Amino acid sequence: MNPSFIVVEGLEGAGKSSVIELIRSFLVFKGHAVECTREPGGTPMAEAIRECVKQSWDEVVTQETELLLMYAARSQLVENKIKPAMSANKWVIGDRHDMSSAAYQGGGRGIDLSVLNALRTMTLGDFEPDLILYLDVEPSVGLARARGRGELDRIELSGLTFFENARKTYKKLVTASNKAIEIDAMQTMDEVHSDVTIVLQNWYASYLLTSQSNGDNNSRKT
Amino acid sequence: MNPSFIVVEGLEGAGKSSVIELIRSFLVFKGHAVECTREPGGTPMAEAIRECVKQSWDEVVTQETELLLMYAARSQLVENKIKPAMSANKWVIGDRHDMSSAAYQGGGRGIDLSVLNALRTMTLGDFEPDLILYLDVEPSVGLARARGRGELDRIELSGLTFFENARKTYKKLVTASNKAIEIDAMQTMDEVHSDVTIVLQNWYASYLLTSQSNGDNNSRKT
Repeated sequence: MNPSFIVVEGLEGAGKSSVIELIRSFLVFKGHAVECTREPGGTPMAEAIRECVKQSWDEVVTQETELLLMYAARSQLVENKIKPAMSANKWVIGDRHDMSSAAYQGGGRGIDLSVLNALRTMTLGDFEPDLILYLDVEPSVGLARARGRGELDRIELSGLTFFENARKTYKKLVTASNKAIEIDAMQTMDEVHSDVTIVLQNWYASYLLTSQSNGDNNSRKT
Repeated sequence: MNPSFIVVEGLEGAGKSSVIELIRSFLVFKGHAVECTREPGGTPMAEAIRECVKQSWDEVVTQETELLLMYAARSQLVENKIKPAMSANKWVIGDRHDMSSAAYQGGGRGIDLSVLNALRTMTLGDFEPDLILYLDVEPSVGLARARGRGELDRIELSGLTFFENARKTYKKLVTASNKAIEIDAMQTMDEVHSDVTIVLQNWYASYLLTSQSNGDNNSRKT
């Protein structure tokens, strides 16, 4: 069975961390070695870039700079951590990936999707997640939760309209994608976890079937 | 007279610093306020990005990451330093600018020029230098000079072929540009400075004429 790259997406305070822990336990229970990553970040250089893009500066951070730094960090993470882990037969769970750029820098900041597509092609080629779980939450609710756990960073301090536009883009992309599934993250944590477990079990069963029928010819190029 | 953005380009050890000092003196003598910048860098955030891209990492730095970081730093510099300086009627001299990315990441690393063009359009729009002085030097000679002044950084440690390809691209771009002039930087410093002075005087005289005939309608949009 080929290892998969599973991504959890959503606004601040959507509950990504606890869902990632749930997925990790599920995969470990199934007998897989698992590596968890986060974006931006996940390698020493990508973490330095994360620090650069997340901190507040005494100068305007242009939307182009924000976008370019996200893709620079992503390139380091995919080439130096995700692909090597999958080659070593580990399953990878990502706290955010490419869809975050489309939602935040595309929808939120208003950067044209054609620019995002060009950057994705240049940086990732045809590498993409096998499953994306999008945790949908109203920005005001998510931000209140995020505020409850401490200081907000530069991007989290963007106005409510920014997050509303990011959410709209998330929902549009999830509808258009055959890899992404939306989870109602306005529910209680137990309800969210129950929904995630059902989605995960169904997806895993069908992934298992596909892997078995394809056999070794389905080896992913990494 | 509208302020100009003058850029000095060339391989390591081409003698950019002393030529920049010469141009600065020339412009100050003509009565202009002058700001000098360097790339990557020139603002606090851009300097942090410079540190990130120039240092050696215990991981592969992908060519895409290197390119994206260069444009991220450039976006910060142009928006937060070069354009505001020119709006305040200062002349700006740049130690490297966009042509460096085409030469190093394009020619040197082999990134497709269409990708570079897309990044340039996204990041800079139609902003470009008024004059580019390219100091042409053989890589082996330039690197020997650079080595003489201390430690080489990650990019300067790239092999000779990298710099030979960067030089080829520089020469091609200079030939194709109506803003760029090549100076033979294999000559003695006195000869180089003499050539630069002649080029600068001629260019300045024609720029003065153009500015006067266009009057205030020629105000640059910054």
